[in-house]
Amino acid sequence: MTTDDPNNDRTPTLADVARLAKVSTATVSRCLNSPDRVIEKTRTKVLAAVRDLGYAPNFNARALAAKHTNTIGAIIPTMENAIFARALQAFQEELGGSGVTLLVASSSYRADLEEEQIRTLVSRGADGILLIGYHRDPKIYEFLQRQGVPIVVAWVFDPQADVLTVGFDNFTAMKALADKVISMGHRRIATITANPEYNDRASERLRGIRAAMSEAGISATDLSIVESAYGIDEGGKALEQILAQPVRPSVVMCGNDVLAVGAIARAKELGLRVPEDISVTGFDDIEIAKISSPPLTTVHVPHRRMGKEAARMLINLVNATKDQKNTLIETSLKIRSSLSKR
Amino acid sequence: MTTDDPNNDRTPTLADVARLAKVSTATVSRCLNSPDRVIEKTRTKVLAAVRDLGYAPNFNARALAAKHTNTIGAIIPTMENAIFARALQAFQEELGGSGVTLLVASSSYRADLEEEQIRTLVSRGADGILLIGYHRDPKIYEFLQRQGVPIVVAWVFDPQADVLTVGFDNFTAMKALADKVISMGHRRIATITANPEYNDRASERLRGIRAAMSEAGISATDLSIVESAYGIDEGGKALEQILAQPVRPSVVMCGNDVLAVGAIARAKELGLRVPEDISVTGFDDIEIAKISSPPLTTVHVPHRRMGKEAARMLINLVNATKDQKNTLIETSLKIRSSLSKR
Repeated sequence: MTTDDPNNDRTPTLADVARLAKVSTATVSRCLNSPDRVIEKTRTKVLAAVRDLGYAPNFNARALAAKHTNTIGAIIPTMENAIFARALQAFQEELGGSGVTLLVASSSYRADLEEEQIRTLVSRGADGILLIGYHRDPKIYEFLQRQGVPIVVAWVFDPQADVLTVGFDNFTAMKALADKVISMGHRRIATITANPEYNDRASERLRGIRAAMSEAGISATDLSIVESAYGIDEGGKALEQILAQPVRPSVVMCGNDVLAVGAIARAKELGLRVPEDISVTGFDDIEIAKISSPPLTTVHVPHRRMGKEAARMLINLVNATKDQKNTLIETSLKIRSSLSKR
Repeated sequence: MTTDDPNNDRTPTLADVARLAKVSTATVSRCLNSPDRVIEKTRTKVLAAVRDLGYAPNFNARALAAKHTNTIGAIIPTMENAIFARALQAFQEELGGSGVTLLVASSSYRADLEEEQIRTLVSRGADGILLIGYHRDPKIYEFLQRQGVPIVVAWVFDPQADVLTVGFDNFTAMKALADKVISMGHRRIATITANPEYNDRASERLRGIRAAMSEAGISATDLSIVESAYGIDEGGKALEQILAQPVRPSVVMCGNDVLAVGAIARAKELGLRVPEDISVTGFDDIEIAKISSPPLTTVHVPHRRMGKEAARMLINLVNATKDQKNTLIETSLKIRSSLSKR
């Protein structure tokens, strides 16, 4: 990345922000500390300048403080349900072993909130940050690099990325499950997925299903895609949409276990038998997969191992240990009775 | 609370810590920033002094920074499963509406970790902190008061507490459920509970069951108590312990929905029918209560309302709004088919 800013090499100051936004430093300060006391137009202008320069409000105070704060931040898309909780627990335990405290923010899958949270963690002095998924505005990576805050990206394995990643290959994992589904005679497939546009895990999983279908000579028109927010109720609503379509699929491949459990519950409420009338699959293998009735066929992700590795990598980065490598976590299929032969 | 420390009125400094621990300020600094470079004995001595004085490492840097950081912290006992997630989501949404970023730490139900996390949040400049449950070392409340960091305690309603609380009456809520259970003919009751010693929610719920039994003239010896860690598998293991006892209870009242769902799953694996052979109840009414098979009788807690109220109260405290009141959140019973007549 290049920029025309001649000051690129030094840490931006409050004065730089004021200059760029054409306001006084007092106004910048007010925008950052009491935003409700500043009119909208000024606030927008100042925040744009903060963003463009990669300014971190508390950086000066931070520099005065101890070099290491022994605090590491993590930003996860949601705290609801167990999807990120188990990996985070292992992440925290491993950090705790090194005397490091973890602070977590939850972005509600919103890029704008995540960016705000990254800035907050940096200005609160986090020694390093764990992020989920690689896909985000390159300016954020530039900002973190300029601030000297190391990051590890989890939930994806990407040797091409210019940050360290620890995760699994979402494409390969979902393709393996789709291969299995197709080998059991399914041809008409529906999928319930998160919006794949800003979610690289979702888009890779979708690509995995498409690749398996294509290899098996199944037309792409036999895949019906319903996008859904995250949640049990949401999975149920998405299932209703699928059932409202003219041709009923024989299997619903869900982007995660929570959506799948919701789809199963709604199917049963509507009088359908799972798997006799419709098969359902998940992704993650969290605890509800086992207690679901019927138990859920899914992709097992070793979340605890991933969290532990992420912590180890981040601690090493903070301590400037060299020669760190991207880490691939292997997934496996868990075939349970929510999937049957067509 | 009183203390003999003559310096009680001012913020403790690094030098105060050094004096009390009888080491140099450089050693104190090293203990806080690179603990692995200090021998265990010195470290223990210094950390004891830090604790006794209520010293917050980064306070000086913090004082240099802006007065408000627009960051609020929350410490929850666990991120696993949905138990605290929904309230926290509502808490965060309400804070977000005021431009405040939430940072969360998870204490794994450990008092020592919680204390460390409180200190970290204070030294990272949190404007206020949300805590769960009232029961903790009074020194922590003194420390927070001395640092001028306002707190709100959620999940309990306690007009006697000298901090602001928002929550429900755990005793009354569980007693109402136990009254219902007893009215359906149950006499031999088992309960799966968290260790009540350091968990006021658990001890109050247990007291609720005991009060209902006593009012109905049922002997306390007919209550069988099994303590369990939090988790689906843990609920299953606790159920096995209950079944291994000489007399089988007709109902298992669980301290939360997660334990209850685990108990139901294990009972079914062992060939028992729920509720025909054994009834099971929960507490919280999180999403899995509805998709459990059979659906779970439980106490409905309006978690979202509680989270929203907590945020409102904490924002008001940070802005020094006066005349704040403790807020009682009403719970209600959800009678579903996991509970039947004896």
